[in-house]
Amino acid sequence: VLGVAPSLETFLRPRSIALFGASDDPATPRGLITRLLAEKGFAGELHLINPSRKEIGGRACRRGIADVGAAVDLAILVIPAEQVLPALRECAALGVRNALILSSGFADGGENAGAQGEIAAIARDSGMRICGPNTVGFYNETAGVAATFSPAVNMKPEALFSAGTRKVGVVAQSGGLGFSLYHRGRLMGLNFSACITTGNEVDLTAADFLDHLAADDDTGAILMFLETVRDPQAFMAALDKAAAAAKPVVVVKVGRSAAANRATVSHTGALAGWDAAYDAMFARHGVTVAEDLGRAVAIVAGFVTNPLPRGTRAGVVTVSGGAGALAADRLHAGGFDVPELSAPLQERIAAMLPSFAATANPVDVTGQATRGPQSMDAIDALGDSGEVDLVVMAGTMSRAIPPLDIARLRQFRGEPHVPLFLYSYTLPSDFGLRALAEAGMVAYTSLDDIVAAATAMECYRRFLDRRDARAMPAETVHRRLGLRAGVIAEHAAKDLLAAHGIAVGRRLLVRDEADIARVPADFYPVAAKIQSADIPHKTEAQGVRLGIADAEALRAAHIDLLAAAHAYDPAAAIDGVLVEPMARPGVEMIVGVVRDPQLGPIVTVGAGGTLAELIKDAVRLQGAVGEAEARDMLRSLRTYPLLDGYRGAPPADIAALAELIARLSGFAADHRDEIAELELNPVLVHAAGEGLTIVDALIVAAEEPR
Amino acid sequence: VLGVAPSLETFLRPRSIALFGASDDPATPRGLITRLLAEKGFAGELHLINPSRKEIGGRACRRGIADVGAAVDLAILVIPAEQVLPALRECAALGVRNALILSSGFADGGENAGAQGEIAAIARDSGMRICGPNTVGFYNETAGVAATFSPAVNMKPEALFSAGTRKVGVVAQSGGLGFSLYHRGRLMGLNFSACITTGNEVDLTAADFLDHLAADDDTGAILMFLETVRDPQAFMAALDKAAAAAKPVVVVKVGRSAAANRATVSHTGALAGWDAAYDAMFARHGVTVAEDLGRAVAIVAGFVTNPLPRGTRAGVVTVSGGAGALAADRLHAGGFDVPELSAPLQERIAAMLPSFAATANPVDVTGQATRGPQSMDAIDALGDSGEVDLVVMAGTMSRAIPPLDIARLRQFRGEPHVPLFLYSYTLPSDFGLRALAEAGMVAYTSLDDIVAAATAMECYRRFLDRRDARAMPAETVHRRLGLRAGVIAEHAAKDLLAAHGIAVGRRLLVRDEADIARVPADFYPVAAKIQSADIPHKTEAQGVRLGIADAEALRAAHIDLLAAAHAYDPAAAIDGVLVEPMARPGVEMIVGVVRDPQLGPIVTVGAGGTLAELIKDAVRLQGAVGEAEARDMLRSLRTYPLLDGYRGAPPADIAALAELIARLSGFAADHRDEIAELELNPVLVHAAGEGLTIVDALIVAAEEPR
Repeated sequence: VLGVAPSLETFLRPRSIALFGASDDPATPRGLITRLLAEKGFAGELHLINPSRKEIGGRACRRGIADVGAAVDLAILVIPAEQVLPALRECAALGVRNALILSSGFADGGENAGAQGEIAAIARDSGMRICGPNTVGFYNETAGVAATFSPAVNMKPEALFSAGTRKVGVVAQSGGLGFSLYHRGRLMGLNFSACITTGNEVDLTAADFLDHLAADDDTGAILMFLETVRDPQAFMAALDKAAAAAKPVVVVKVGRSAAANRATVSHTGALAGWDAAYDAMFARHGVTVAEDLGRAVAIVAGFVTNPLPRGTRAGVVTVSGGAGALAADRLHAGGFDVPELSAPLQERIAAMLPSFAATANPVDVTGQATRGPQSMDAIDALGDSGEVDLVVMAGTMSRAIPPLDIARLRQFRGEPHVPLFLYSYTLPSDFGLRALAEAGMVAYTSLDDIVAAATAMECYRRFLDRRDARAMPAETVHRRLGLRAGVIAEHAAKDLLAAHGIAVGRRLLVRDEADIARVPADFYPVAAKIQSADIPHKTEAQGVRLGIADAEALRAAHIDLLAAAHAYDPAAAIDGVLVEPMARPGVEMIVGVVRDPQLGPIVTVGAGGTLAELIKDAVRLQGAVGEAEARDMLRSLRTYPLLDGYRGAPPADIAALAELIARLSGFAADHRDEIAELELNPVLVHAAGEGLTIVDALIVAAEEPR
Repeated sequence: VLGVAPSLETFLRPRSIALFGASDDPATPRGLITRLLAEKGFAGELHLINPSRKEIGGRACRRGIADVGAAVDLAILVIPAEQVLPALRECAALGVRNALILSSGFADGGENAGAQGEIAAIARDSGMRICGPNTVGFYNETAGVAATFSPAVNMKPEALFSAGTRKVGVVAQSGGLGFSLYHRGRLMGLNFSACITTGNEVDLTAADFLDHLAADDDTGAILMFLETVRDPQAFMAALDKAAAAAKPVVVVKVGRSAAANRATVSHTGALAGWDAAYDAMFARHGVTVAEDLGRAVAIVAGFVTNPLPRGTRAGVVTVSGGAGALAADRLHAGGFDVPELSAPLQERIAAMLPSFAATANPVDVTGQATRGPQSMDAIDALGDSGEVDLVVMAGTMSRAIPPLDIARLRQFRGEPHVPLFLYSYTLPSDFGLRALAEAGMVAYTSLDDIVAAATAMECYRRFLDRRDARAMPAETVHRRLGLRAGVIAEHAAKDLLAAHGIAVGRRLLVRDEADIARVPADFYPVAAKIQSADIPHKTEAQGVRLGIADAEALRAAHIDLLAAAHAYDPAAAIDGVLVEPMARPGVEMIVGVVRDPQLGPIVTVGAGGTLAELIKDAVRLQGAVGEAEARDMLRSLRTYPLLDGYRGAPPADIAALAELIARLSGFAADHRDEIAELELNPVLVHAAGEGLTIVDALIVAAEEPR
């Protein structure tokens, strides 16, 4: 692990280690870490510390760190919680550079919760970097540093094989789950640079290690388990670094349910945070969110064994008609096309296969071709064709014979190629996995894992393309808006938006009856709405009149509206009545921005109406959104077809909507200090070329600017 | 396998077998089946047939079946396609009771497609039952009959272990995938009665074997892979038999995409059929549909290792906070509650655990308790509590120590208990799996597999409850309706429905201007709609007028409507204008019945409106639907909350809607001979107690009664 952050370099690849709590009882965590540190290839100095032992396994044992008499890069503490503080203080005094605290019983629910603040103070005052407490440690497999008592590291070497892929780095806030990601990936044939678990994160956080791995030449992809993000700015900066290096990041994030939050609070003393804001932040930074551990490993396996697909057309090669059909169904359900191949390509493939083989796609080389060259012939033909963006080979890899010609498979992968996913419908044998690993390939046992991996990879390619195309906005200093805290009435909100280039329609604030004469004739029929910062819910206050035909009727409505407002809240400060032309029909949308306390502005775009709300058809992205991104957001809505000309309706003005989203999110981002919330609901999107109408607008100014 | 169908008894448990194509070359399918038949414990007579060999592996080899000189229960043919017919004819002549044809190259795309009809004729004429051609055969593990060359059966005995569960029977239309289900389940520790693959189904079909297993005392659950159903009536009768025996059936069915249908057509010469109708038929018969192979095995594993859950409240026990949180999130996403435990229960659990353990649910016994009794204590406490309907234990089962106290686990399972699912976040070790198997348990490696299994089991319990409660309708003879084929105009359709007890509202058909005076005063304001079997799309023909205030206005509208109809189609036969009171507002729904050519009436219930159509929010059930079933259908809609009182709206009249669905589906089922299609769209469901309004009704009478 060669990185740019020197302190983590000495943490993850120390030249010398002092182990507090060394033991030779292999049934205990202390004994296991002692053995793993000695056996997994660590080439530096290992100092064992245990005041009640003279030696352990032939190594001398010291009473304390003071007896070591040499510089120590990393102190590892596997001692009772109440002994941690004195030991740390001694380490700091002796200039130890890093400490890893495996002991638990602090903010994770133990009796030494109070001591956690003192640990943080030691880190701050001494400059010693501290990971933990309550971590299961880390395993730097490249450097042979097994600073952990995780049994997952304790695998028999003969059980391991490697597909020689780009290496995966793991960062996890749960020791058990971090090493389970490593364990699952390792048994699949993946290579790992380091697996790091961060525990209570008193000093070093997941963001620090993410930043390190993003710059680490040894790491090609990053796999994370997160319960929370303690330092969002640093975390996002690290994600940007990973994106700049085109290193995909795959995250399992818990906290979508109340019960999960109960669990994580008790576990690491952190709040899990608002789910939707996290999703928006992950989407912004091209992070793939996986829902389960096996799925996460399957996705990262796709990233490190294959190039990114350039589209969503899938070819299927199989030795079993049933498996081909199942693969086609699952790809289709996941949004991929399985196109019928062109006649010339089918002819080319038919020439290689038995007469009763199928060539349309799926290509069924038939069970009789299991051992012949036909599968590889068909894969080569599809790979070269330009007719598909990825290939799935569905076969059986449970036998004691190689499922494919390994030399030809290696050759295929040596040339520029489309992604190739190998699916074994029986469970693959160790022999089969090892044979494939020789060609740099892994075997999947779930079609839905393949679909998830291919989907993540295709999204990531679009993310990188968009990222390349994205003009970075110039850093500008924004004048304060000078808003008073709280709700801003619709008319004022619309004036503010209009002043910032947002297409608010024609309108007139009628302050008294005399103003009614100033309403242009071509406004009629009009809508009239009471305007008061004290009446945010106008409809509830009988504060809206629609379809008013002329000035006479408006005069009557004006009187009614004022009376209704007075009846609703006699103390309300009334600004007047906002008069606007009745909106033309259009597709109903909602565009909003909410400022998350940690992550800043989160843009939400969704379909309008009760039913859309019910099915939660909304998509979120963190920060300012470009027009191309806005179009991608819209396309990911389930109700996107309504915008795209559903059932013969004319397509809606998607360009105008994308521009609105971009401008609104830019405005909210520029003024994030002052704007807490902003919602346009509904926005009626008219036919293409005819723009849109912002029917209502709400702004909530922040209590105090940040 | 002891069943009631004598011919399949001799097929699956033959006393004597003749193997055509015996070989001692283990690299060929012929050699493999020869070896498997000899080695897997078959206790009857095995006659090898191969004219070019004298003996194979010490067994005498016959030139042909005529040389056997003894009764043969089962002939197995592994010979070139062109030799199949002569061999079969000889078998039939000699009174062989059953034949299994493993040869391929018939309707599966081969050059002997024409011979398949002749095979069928032999079966028909001789009474010999024939399975295949193009099958991979079957494995009756109970009786040791390995009538297959599937390498999946060729597992090393030392690799196998058994959780001693109720046995699973597999029936599959794909040889590769059938045996992959067996292979995956066997490696998980499941027991199997038989794995049967049916190939081209020239005589014996999946329905025959399903029927056999439904009655087989040795089989506790059934796992199927289907591409098509050739004999729907027999198939459904077999499903009924399985339901009556409370044997769950789990199906993987392909054919949801065009590409899959291309694949299956080429594979077995069958059409895959209409997806939605299959779903409706499966739902009717309590069949669980699984989307992938691993998922199907995981679901059936839940059925055979656990009782059915009585509800959706889940308890989580874990040794890792992260794993507990992940389990809670996945259960929540799958529709389960993870309720906070009561204070007394939490106190009881806390007394068993370390001070920093979590007790709210998830119960985190902490990593320090991995080897102690705490996990089992917590499982026992939750199991007895009555506060949860199932328990998920999330731990690590990859170690060389039992993950739980196996004796206590066995005891837990020996008493009446809630379902217990064991999740290993690391991949389980062979040791761990075998230890759990001693207690009759399997380990899951995916939380979503557990959620899918628990969901299927909870649905199946509701299915069995409903089934028990369902009064079987008396067989009645229904008078023919005497409908003329084609579209029936709305007024006639409504009259027909009203005559069959369906709550069609007040209406009057205005045949000429004089009828207008007969419209009751309290109808106004009214809707008026042109009535013609030639104008099924009234709106398109400008044939609908709404909100007509009085008789005067109706008179004008009547003239307009007739003129518009004439302009639209001068040849249309006009029955008149249907006049109805304007409908009160309500939740918009669609209720329809379409007659599937194979499966009969399929009832569809869905939310109305463009957006609901877009998200395909509809649920289907085959045949006549009871009111309780109708309520279950409604509850499974995504938009169900709209009916249940969304955002403070009054709940809709769900009772009236359920009654409508039951009556309409009963009517359609009674008259399935004559009614091809029936749709009420929209139905406006008013507030509870206020009924509903059927706004429009369409009936299409069948071209020719069946």
